[in-house]
Amino acid sequence: MTTGAAVQKIPDPNAGVTLITPSAKMATPTHGGRAKCLQRLVRLDLPVPRTVALSFDTVHAIAAGQLPDIAQMLQSFDGNALLCVRPSSEDPDWGGPSAVLNIGMNDDRLAILSRDIGDEAAAALYLRFVQAYAIHVARLDPDQFDEIEDTGRAGLRTALLAYEDEAEEPFPQDPAVQLREVLRSMARAWEGTTARLLRQAKGAPVDAGLGLVVQEMALGLGRGECGSGVLQLVNSETGQPLLTGRYLSQSQGRDALRQRHRSLYLERDPRGASLQDVAPEAFDKLLAYADLMRQRLREEMQIEFTIREGAVHILDGVRVERSARAAVRIAVRLAQDGIISRPEAVMRIEPRALSELLHRQIATGSERDVIGRGIAASPGAATGRIVFSSAEAQASAARGEACILVRRETSPEDIRGMHAAVGVLTERGGMTSHAAVIGRGLGLPCVVGAARMGFQVQQKTLVGERGRIFHEGDVITLDGTSGEVLLGSPETIEATLDDAFQTLMGWADAARDIGIRANADTPADAATARRFMAQGIGLCRTEHMFFDSERITPMREMIFADTPEDRQAALAVLLPMQRADFTELFRIMEGLPVCIRLFDPPLHEFLPHTRAGLRDLAEALDLPVSDVTRRVEALTEYNPMLGLRGVRLGITVPEIYDMQARAIFEATLDASRDGAPVVPEIMLPLVSAKREVELLRARIDAVAAAVRAERGASFTFRLGVMAETPRACLRADEIAPHCQFLSFGTNDLTQMTYGLSRDDAGRFMSDYVQQGVFAEDPFHRLDIDGVGELVAAGVRRGRAANSGVTLSMCGEHGGDPESIAFCREIGMDYVSCSPFRVPVARLAAAQLALREAAMQKTHER
Amino acid sequence: MTTGAAVQKIPDPNAGVTLITPSAKMATPTHGGRAKCLQRLVRLDLPVPRTVALSFDTVHAIAAGQLPDIAQMLQSFDGNALLCVRPSSEDPDWGGPSAVLNIGMNDDRLAILSRDIGDEAAAALYLRFVQAYAIHVARLDPDQFDEIEDTGRAGLRTALLAYEDEAEEPFPQDPAVQLREVLRSMARAWEGTTARLLRQAKGAPVDAGLGLVVQEMALGLGRGECGSGVLQLVNSETGQPLLTGRYLSQSQGRDALRQRHRSLYLERDPRGASLQDVAPEAFDKLLAYADLMRQRLREEMQIEFTIREGAVHILDGVRVERSARAAVRIAVRLAQDGIISRPEAVMRIEPRALSELLHRQIATGSERDVIGRGIAASPGAATGRIVFSSAEAQASAARGEACILVRRETSPEDIRGMHAAVGVLTERGGMTSHAAVIGRGLGLPCVVGAARMGFQVQQKTLVGERGRIFHEGDVITLDGTSGEVLLGSPETIEATLDDAFQTLMGWADAARDIGIRANADTPADAATARRFMAQGIGLCRTEHMFFDSERITPMREMIFADTPEDRQAALAVLLPMQRADFTELFRIMEGLPVCIRLFDPPLHEFLPHTRAGLRDLAEALDLPVSDVTRRVEALTEYNPMLGLRGVRLGITVPEIYDMQARAIFEATLDASRDGAPVVPEIMLPLVSAKREVELLRARIDAVAAAVRAERGASFTFRLGVMAETPRACLRADEIAPHCQFLSFGTNDLTQMTYGLSRDDAGRFMSDYVQQGVFAEDPFHRLDIDGVGELVAAGVRRGRAANSGVTLSMCGEHGGDPESIAFCREIGMDYVSCSPFRVPVARLAAAQLALREAAMQKTHER
Repeated sequence: MTTGAAVQKIPDPNAGVTLITPSAKMATPTHGGRAKCLQRLVRLDLPVPRTVALSFDTVHAIAAGQLPDIAQMLQSFDGNALLCVRPSSEDPDWGGPSAVLNIGMNDDRLAILSRDIGDEAAAALYLRFVQAYAIHVARLDPDQFDEIEDTGRAGLRTALLAYEDEAEEPFPQDPAVQLREVLRSMARAWEGTTARLLRQAKGAPVDAGLGLVVQEMALGLGRGECGSGVLQLVNSETGQPLLTGRYLSQSQGRDALRQRHRSLYLERDPRGASLQDVAPEAFDKLLAYADLMRQRLREEMQIEFTIREGAVHILDGVRVERSARAAVRIAVRLAQDGIISRPEAVMRIEPRALSELLHRQIATGSERDVIGRGIAASPGAATGRIVFSSAEAQASAARGEACILVRRETSPEDIRGMHAAVGVLTERGGMTSHAAVIGRGLGLPCVVGAARMGFQVQQKTLVGERGRIFHEGDVITLDGTSGEVLLGSPETIEATLDDAFQTLMGWADAARDIGIRANADTPADAATARRFMAQGIGLCRTEHMFFDSERITPMREMIFADTPEDRQAALAVLLPMQRADFTELFRIMEGLPVCIRLFDPPLHEFLPHTRAGLRDLAEALDLPVSDVTRRVEALTEYNPMLGLRGVRLGITVPEIYDMQARAIFEATLDASRDGAPVVPEIMLPLVSAKREVELLRARIDAVAAAVRAERGASFTFRLGVMAETPRACLRADEIAPHCQFLSFGTNDLTQMTYGLSRDDAGRFMSDYVQQGVFAEDPFHRLDIDGVGELVAAGVRRGRAANSGVTLSMCGEHGGDPESIAFCREIGMDYVSCSPFRVPVARLAAAQLALREAAMQKTHER
Repeated sequence: MTTGAAVQKIPDPNAGVTLITPSAKMATPTHGGRAKCLQRLVRLDLPVPRTVALSFDTVHAIAAGQLPDIAQMLQSFDGNALLCVRPSSEDPDWGGPSAVLNIGMNDDRLAILSRDIGDEAAAALYLRFVQAYAIHVARLDPDQFDEIEDTGRAGLRTALLAYEDEAEEPFPQDPAVQLREVLRSMARAWEGTTARLLRQAKGAPVDAGLGLVVQEMALGLGRGECGSGVLQLVNSETGQPLLTGRYLSQSQGRDALRQRHRSLYLERDPRGASLQDVAPEAFDKLLAYADLMRQRLREEMQIEFTIREGAVHILDGVRVERSARAAVRIAVRLAQDGIISRPEAVMRIEPRALSELLHRQIATGSERDVIGRGIAASPGAATGRIVFSSAEAQASAARGEACILVRRETSPEDIRGMHAAVGVLTERGGMTSHAAVIGRGLGLPCVVGAARMGFQVQQKTLVGERGRIFHEGDVITLDGTSGEVLLGSPETIEATLDDAFQTLMGWADAARDIGIRANADTPADAATARRFMAQGIGLCRTEHMFFDSERITPMREMIFADTPEDRQAALAVLLPMQRADFTELFRIMEGLPVCIRLFDPPLHEFLPHTRAGLRDLAEALDLPVSDVTRRVEALTEYNPMLGLRGVRLGITVPEIYDMQARAIFEATLDASRDGAPVVPEIMLPLVSAKREVELLRARIDAVAAAVRAERGASFTFRLGVMAETPRACLRADEIAPHCQFLSFGTNDLTQMTYGLSRDDAGRFMSDYVQQGVFAEDPFHRLDIDGVGELVAAGVRRGRAANSGVTLSMCGEHGGDPESIAFCREIGMDYVSCSPFRVPVARLAAAQLALREAAMQKTHER
């Protein structure tokens, strides 16, 4: 019996009406989580009031007008009891109609209860039911009922009259009619369009079903100690053990939480009265029940309870809501307490939720003066003064002032400014723009594409969404997690890599069967990678190293050199700096592999394009401006992505790679002198033919031989290819025999497979995703169908031609759990991602391995 | 016994020494073409002097020092005869050592021959031998021997003394020694490095062998009518039947050609004496022999003959050298005379040679004052005055003056200038630059990448290679076939599509089994396509239609429009012009399919990028300059190739395609009114996902329905996809069910597969090809290994998903014979190429079919 089948045929509604007993047939996918949980509590012999569960099929039938036998249902309960109806969907996150309490309340019961629990309490119960019934069941105007105050009989009378007025009939007195209508309205509410869209947005399937539970009420009102409350054993924010909750005498439902000023603490507390004070026995029992539930339900539960004349009743239990940090601690403690296994703890954390832990966040509840919104491109919160250029950012950093770099967009020339800033805000770009990619790499909060704000960079003003104008030096805060730009400095919470986090990651690593490295270009990146326990650097881009002010001039001299000799002279100036770069990286990553991609971008990226810049350059090089301008123009390309860059530069201007190889080898020897020996990996970018690899391998081997001879020392290295053109994937069988590793660069590969420039796609990508042309931005989620086929072919062919070749992926996709699943499935050795994605990747990879192991076990049975 | 094996092991040199008789075992691949031809002549019972053939193996052995038995060899000949040795390689184009005549000449024979043929003639024979022997065999200083004049005994004595002096030994008198040394030196010459490189450059394999023929000499000197000559039955330039050749009494070898002032015509001629006059019987015999050779050797042969005392001897026959035009006529006449079959005639023409026929050429022998050189990008000769801008070109054309457009490079804005010019010369670019592609399309001679010339376009001067300066208005001539730039106006020959050409193409079409269409954007292109009998238009690019001066303004208004309504208003101005474009095309192509690619380039190509242009535009649109500048900047892309263009524009700015579809449909109805009904094909560019096709199909269907309703008329159309992204090829199975055809655009596909922009590749492509990184420029020759795999996958998957889909290729590769072979093999329906490549493609395709049929026949046996 599936919910899918129920959509087509309306089944007998009575078949799915079940009194919850330990042996009743009942499951979450047919009756919902609440019903199943209640059955578990019944099985634990907890004092749960009598409850009848209505299956998804039955509720569906009710919505379609086929009602079960209500009279028969009522016979399951004490004839004098009031009832409540609560939703029971498969996943509590999918929502559902509000619970309705006190069903069965009518004039007769009012009279009886008045005697029993007092006139006021009885009237309050009745009023509460009339209000709920009028608004949710009869669908009368809420304004007529919401405001009616609980003033005993007077309030009740107002409500009953208002009901009669609006509904044009008296309030129904028959409990069967009441229950029928409540069930019908709740069933129909679930099938409404808005409810359907809301739950689908949360991931519910189209045919998600609703169950209902009808429960006898343990009234929290009456003589003796009566009341209701909520309890959990942990703090929802931190996950630390802490008895948390409230109790309110003479109350129902969750009133204890709503009326905190009146409610009691649970445990004895210096701040005020507690349940432990007023009903110590009940308190002890409650604690014992909570502990039993944690043990047997294998989860931290929030318990809804009622005390009736001193006796404890457990009405409901739901999973404790929790922050990402708390989720980790809860899972770890459950495992440490032997309640769940370690793999189960690992499986319980959503990998993407980890990124919340890794970055400073704006504190919940702190005030947010939102002045703009953009794409949340790199998570975390950052507060600083506005600056409009990289130079100002560096100056600000030098003064020790935190700053936010505000640009229309960023380019490689802004790298140093980005390093100096605490956050970046741009007008243009998407999740894969330069600012976003670098921001994530640096763990720098970043909001991009804030197109509705005014970026008047020249005039040094930033205009907020409703026309408010901000200037250089004004303090703003970026929320890179939500994409909001806030004025001033709201309170923030530090990132915490606490012991629970480390423990969980350790367990994850024990299960994981694919390597995780980090893309890291700078010592800071490398340190982050190491902190997050990346197993090496999978991609170190070297081009940013040449934008430094003391390096850009020799770089430009090299570009303008007329002869190989002049080029070598310029490069000789750069050599010691490059060597120092690599030595530092090798030292930080000691004992781990570091994969260095040789110089990749077109040379014109290093030349000025403004008049002033050209004049300065001409002066620096002692050449006529016209000459410099002409040569800069000659180097300009129509499609730089597809031009003279990568390995093509390596072959046509071989001196650059010669210098880099030498720097790498000398650094290898320097770093190995006082640490574990380093085995550097050298990666050739933009390869499209095996001959490119053959030619460069020969040159790099020659450099290695020269360095060995000069230093009289030995070292080894590994040479590989960044497979980022479709052709490199297709010809991997030819290329693999010439190298030790192939690393698939899925950023460029995606660009070429689609014929789609990442930098230019922003203008239509949102249109495209909205119209469903692309199911998702392929730069964000690896396109398994197209790009994936090329990667898989490359892996298969590369491995077939060279069984010892190491295979990996080093695009932005490396941190995406679905993409990791793909890489693992096709047999890659590791993936490499931004340092701040490393924990996400480690956890996601572990879960894949665990899920597969579980599937295999199931299969073996 | 192969030549390859001979390289490893030196065989018995005597095994390959064979007297040529009708039954001797002898073949071109083992003994060379000359030996085989002589055997054929022997079999025809022609008076061929006794000849011994030395196989490749024997000659190889000789070079390695293993000589055959010379004395035995000499026994094959009349003991009194002189001998000559000639090379016999597998292909005469591969070259070989010079022939050596009069071997066996020595002091004794001099005395005998002096009596026989006179002292002077005998001395001349001896001198000739001594000179050849000294220079080619003994390798003495040529200066010592070249200059010695034929002054009877005195000259001979000088030569013999010089020999003794230089060689430090007397001239060898033993004929066996002479022959041995001649054979040895010829064998070694073949193995020399220079000779090897030269023949490999002509396509010879590394292990190409050399055969030699040793022939008894029929002396053309002596008493009675003696002499030698050369004869052929056709004109080498035109291929028309014409008895051609010369005869010289008392001469040897090809002296009759060398000494034209002394030699005789063959046939009676008013201009002077003839062989027919002096030896009518010999002449008749000779003609009969020539005719027999044409019939039985099935080829037009050039015959080397000697007359000795009135008797005719046939010494040698070689294939007549011929121009491309002559080749066609010769093949057609041989077939028409029943000597060869029509398929054989078709097979005898090298397809690429046809392009010589299709363009005006500089006459052979006319004077060439070369002032520069570049890449021969579009064949043919064109003479005109230099202009430096498209505007000047148009003005010049308006004055009726032919002009050559000289630009640093061309862009789409130059299209009208290119139409106005008779030729284009650029500083930058390669075979696939804009100028080259458009030039070939227009049949416009074009030299690109003339980087050594000075292009001072601003100053309106062009500097020749050795510093000569030329100005606007100076007359130059481009040789687009050789890549030379000439000063002045050398004599040229018109293109000729004569009856022989038409006949041959008819035979080719009868054999062909893959369609050939043309890429044609303009009525002129279409007319050319029709003239060359293309079977339709396979690619009509529409973007050039918007550069016209009266269209660019509404185009820009459209680009700057803020609302869909404003866009539609601007497009409404363009609609009638587009409709007229298509109506004209449909009328020209009446009855044939026309495939129109919807608008493809990014919009910013239509915007000005100079300050003046921006000012003008601002004025035209009545907007502030700053506004226009900002919006032009906003539209600029980093990588336009991979940006907002093609189908992406069609989806995000749908009004453009709506207008084009309407123009096509209205033109369809207009053109069908007075001609055969037109079925237009609409092609969507840059598709990468099937949803793109679904969305646009719906819109285009809606436009079609609207036009049908408005006009009250019916028509059909076919919708297809230009598969030019790797992803479109990979996902062809998803895309094909939504369209009627898939046309593979291999230009863009190559760019994306390699990650290589055609426009930017020029800077390193020559380096790359020279270093063997790419075997060939992949834009020139389809990369079967990489790009081809994607195309093949697309064809396979597309066909599997939609068996009725039409499959084709429409990149620049469409005219390349190897690429056509590939397309045919993977089962494409047609290829489309530049109009001027259509005949080449038709012929190449026919040859593929014929070759396959021949293979199958062989297989069936």
